[in-house]
Amino acid sequence: MVFSSKLIEDAVNEFSRLPGIGKKTALRMVLHLMKSEESSVDRFTGAIASMRHGIRFCQHCHNVSDSDVCDICTNPARNKRQICVVENIRDVIAIEATQQYNGVYHLLGGILSPLDGIGPEQLNIVKLCQRVKDMEVEELIMALSPTIEGDTTVYYIARQLQQFPISITTIARGIAFGGELEYADEMTLAKSIAKRLPIDNYVSTIAK
Amino acid sequence: MVFSSKLIEDAVNEFSRLPGIGKKTALRMVLHLMKSEESSVDRFTGAIASMRHGIRFCQHCHNVSDSDVCDICTNPARNKRQICVVENIRDVIAIEATQQYNGVYHLLGGILSPLDGIGPEQLNIVKLCQRVKDMEVEELIMALSPTIEGDTTVYYIARQLQQFPISITTIARGIAFGGELEYADEMTLAKSIAKRLPIDNYVSTIAK
Repeated sequence: MVFSSKLIEDAVNEFSRLPGIGKKTALRMVLHLMKSEESSVDRFTGAIASMRHGIRFCQHCHNVSDSDVCDICTNPARNKRQICVVENIRDVIAIEATQQYNGVYHLLGGILSPLDGIGPEQLNIVKLCQRVKDMEVEELIMALSPTIEGDTTVYYIARQLQQFPISITTIARGIAFGGELEYADEMTLAKSIAKRLPIDNYVSTIAK
Repeated sequence: MVFSSKLIEDAVNEFSRLPGIGKKTALRMVLHLMKSEESSVDRFTGAIASMRHGIRFCQHCHNVSDSDVCDICTNPARNKRQICVVENIRDVIAIEATQQYNGVYHLLGGILSPLDGIGPEQLNIVKLCQRVKDMEVEELIMALSPTIEGDTTVYYIARQLQQFPISITTIARGIAFGGELEYADEMTLAKSIAKRLPIDNYVSTIAK
């Protein structure tokens, strides 16, 4: 693309560095901002700059935070004895959206993946063991991806913590609500038969 | 979506104001910027702020420009006697990409559309007539959308300029190169038969 303005060209180039944004979409955004009020563009750039410069990571759970300890860890109503172990902030947002979980979190920052060069020292695992040791943690809920890497990570963490008297659980796998049996993959279907629930248990799950 | 950080939340809200960006895409971009180097985020916000505060419109053609007169209008190699009339900057970028046009432009800033409240006074039409009057313009090439509004605009401008000895043309409509006849709409096909070209002319077109 040929632009008659270096200012537009620079802005388009910067936008097109964002994930999933090509030159045409970038141009659409730049032209939109060009036509917006100066004050609203200042608010846009200001919010991004403050976010990048001001963002911190919670000392306890490694979640993003505006202060040294995040809102979830400081909330006295949350159960500090229950830690949900997740990969990243997106998972926290997804679980918080259910409004069903009242414990705290621990963000690993990824999962073990030797092929990508991600070993235990790249993840926040030592810190997790420390938390389990220092606080009186009762349960670790492993909410990682149902992949080989996710399972390896669960197994690795469980082994690191075997001397502590805590219960380690993983979130239930199975057929999604509203999902059709015939479209489920074989692995999921097989597991959901193997881990079948007594009907009382099932009724209490959907009644919740 | 519930965010544990106000900084992230503000940045996501600002991003999701952009055209075609929902909350999930906005979050993806914010997390990308959060993980980027501070200097590269500063370059991003800087480019957008300079663009918005520094952008100007060419006094002659109303194209976006970094100075009072745009690069195309100041270029001595461009033919100032030939003006291509377009709706907006996107059309200029598209025509410039062909590298086949050597005249200058005039951006109307839209097309006549009474239903949307866009009359002649909302567009840069008076300025166009002034340019035709003041400079020795020989040809106006109307490159507007082939819609009723586009045709109305062409007609309106032609009437305003009827006392000047200039030729007013419109870009050719027809079947696109590589287009299949059977998929062309009836209107385009009918026009392309009515405006058929002698074969010599056709050969010289594709040879160009």
